[in-house]
Amino acid sequence: MASVTLSPDGSFITLETDAGTNRFHAIWLRDNALDAATRALGNGQRLIALRDIPADTHFTAATVDADGLTVTFAPEGKTVTFPLDWLAAHNYDRAAPATRGWTGPQIACWDSGLMGAVPIGDFTELVQGGRALRDWLGQVNRYGFGKVVNGPVEEGALFKIVDLFGYVRDTNYGKHFEVRTEVNPTNLAFTGLGLQAHTDNPYRDPVPSVQVLYCLESSAAGGENMVVDGFKAAQRLRDENQAYFDVLANHCARFEYAGEAGVCLTARRPMIELAPDGELIGVRFNNRSLAAVTDVPFDQMATYYAAYRRLGEIIDEETMEVTFRLDPGEGFVVDNTRVLHARKGYSGEGKRWLQGCYADKDGLRSRYDAMTREMQEAAE
Amino acid sequence: MASVTLSPDGSFITLETDAGTNRFHAIWLRDNALDAATRALGNGQRLIALRDIPADTHFTAATVDADGLTVTFAPEGKTVTFPLDWLAAHNYDRAAPATRGWTGPQIACWDSGLMGAVPIGDFTELVQGGRALRDWLGQVNRYGFGKVVNGPVEEGALFKIVDLFGYVRDTNYGKHFEVRTEVNPTNLAFTGLGLQAHTDNPYRDPVPSVQVLYCLESSAAGGENMVVDGFKAAQRLRDENQAYFDVLANHCARFEYAGEAGVCLTARRPMIELAPDGELIGVRFNNRSLAAVTDVPFDQMATYYAAYRRLGEIIDEETMEVTFRLDPGEGFVVDNTRVLHARKGYSGEGKRWLQGCYADKDGLRSRYDAMTREMQEAAE
Repeated sequence: MASVTLSPDGSFITLETDAGTNRFHAIWLRDNALDAATRALGNGQRLIALRDIPADTHFTAATVDADGLTVTFAPEGKTVTFPLDWLAAHNYDRAAPATRGWTGPQIACWDSGLMGAVPIGDFTELVQGGRALRDWLGQVNRYGFGKVVNGPVEEGALFKIVDLFGYVRDTNYGKHFEVRTEVNPTNLAFTGLGLQAHTDNPYRDPVPSVQVLYCLESSAAGGENMVVDGFKAAQRLRDENQAYFDVLANHCARFEYAGEAGVCLTARRPMIELAPDGELIGVRFNNRSLAAVTDVPFDQMATYYAAYRRLGEIIDEETMEVTFRLDPGEGFVVDNTRVLHARKGYSGEGKRWLQGCYADKDGLRSRYDAMTREMQEAAE
Repeated sequence: MASVTLSPDGSFITLETDAGTNRFHAIWLRDNALDAATRALGNGQRLIALRDIPADTHFTAATVDADGLTVTFAPEGKTVTFPLDWLAAHNYDRAAPATRGWTGPQIACWDSGLMGAVPIGDFTELVQGGRALRDWLGQVNRYGFGKVVNGPVEEGALFKIVDLFGYVRDTNYGKHFEVRTEVNPTNLAFTGLGLQAHTDNPYRDPVPSVQVLYCLESSAAGGENMVVDGFKAAQRLRDENQAYFDVLANHCARFEYAGEAGVCLTARRPMIELAPDGELIGVRFNNRSLAAVTDVPFDQMATYYAAYRRLGEIIDEETMEVTFRLDPGEGFVVDNTRVLHARKGYSGEGKRWLQGCYADKDGLRSRYDAMTREMQEAAE
């Protein structure tokens, strides 16, 4: 049995249901009323602003039954009903997160243990939409990367990967860029040996939140792609040494790319980015484009550099990396705000040709959430 | 006369010059060395990672003269020189910012006092590049918006505005969207009266950081465009009531748009966004797409709603707004992470047709900084 009681001044109610005991403010419930005068029936957008709701809004009545919670607001004299499952899903009467660097239930952090379970989608299935696409997008959201196989071996095929979930982010590098390597054993310096795992374009703000790399030619041995979960690395750093985590999260680094005419890209953002309540929302790690860090006070700089070094050591550990090979017609999508990527070295002779482009996460998350919603509605 | 002294353990130096007394760590100077083995001559990217620099790096010698500071690092035995002006520009031996919500010297906050000095660029001059474009971009960076006049009256002309500084951000709304209004005095509800100033697409993450609106037809009286400096509004809120500012900055709001098939865009970000050191870096304000806020604990929610209401009141004040009319062939660019926009109501009959699109700030800032750098180099 559910029950509801009004506070003496009518500013909040206490609702007891199977979901627990939760309090809700009158102003919050009024602003979030689900009636057609408050929310547009078609697109769900709010039709009123807070200025349209009296500041002294309070409850004059509240009842609860199987249909939900029904409350009357004064001075408007407006009565609105809220389904109990909506209230349970939107409960805010709970403790704030206590740990810095937390991630939500939609995120699974990983290390090399994921090697046998790399998220893989078959292009011929993904383009059909439906459950195969929904599940693959869900894994990309969850792990921050995903591979695609059985795609076309043709220039621009990477755009067909982007079409699965979003839109290309055009930049000064163009809509896409070429990654061509000719492996010549007499010039090992050119093979990219020793390229540390990194996120791309940290000097851009907003940073491109998705990267797609797609293989069109690969006759060289080696050259595997490698990914590292930056969230896992940041959380390991925190668990080892809270002060190291904090110094990287509490101060902005600076990133810069000014390597061509007409381009001078700069950003001032932390290597470990947290939401104000401590949620881990981004990692930027790129030695090549790190500019002089000048926003760390002198008495913190030695700790900052020790923390930056230790984070790099964690990222470099083999136990952190997942590797996979890309053959022609295969590509991968990576969350560039979270997962670092690198290319392993080559051996022998041969060629390798990839095309890359950027996109954004909002579309990817939206497509997944919309597909999930539609499948739930179809099942109801 | 400049002088330099080594710390007893060689971990830092103290440099006295005309610019003041500043300390620099050995590890910081080594990582930021400007020699060709550390930084690529062509594009300036760092060629080594921190793992390539010994953790016990320290100074064994330091001298200073007119050419700059010359230091020798052990255990590498490497000697590098830094120009004194580079060191002065990259000094980090200073106090951290003490005030939350600060903005850098590149930003000028404004209110209705800016009415007589709206940044305006003439399209026919802007497309020539050069100083007219550089100065207009500088004003857009500084004030967060800028108008363009004398542009072509043709569909898609807004893309020519974007070409001045960056790239269109394609979204589920397309590369551009149409804003058409037919003003009919028998249906005033359709005139958009009462639309509160807002930022666009707060439910997108990353949010589009630039919006362009361009007028192709305007036979209706009224319908002025209105902009409000969200940074100014946030700083006014802070100066009035620090607790209000803090509650909006310390907790994430939630934004959502799920109003069409296949789209379910959600974001969890604060209305007032700060860098970890308190720099004001973003404002999100949009009553239509604010979802139920569930990340504010119960005991903070009443304060949160009072602060959200007060921020809206400040935004609604006439003393905060700058208005301007857009005639056919005119448009404006707005920093959507900072400046709110709205449209005033119409009177009489007529039509109004605008086209809008999104883009990003990184390109705009890059173009301005690169043009400034090139003009300085040309002058030297």
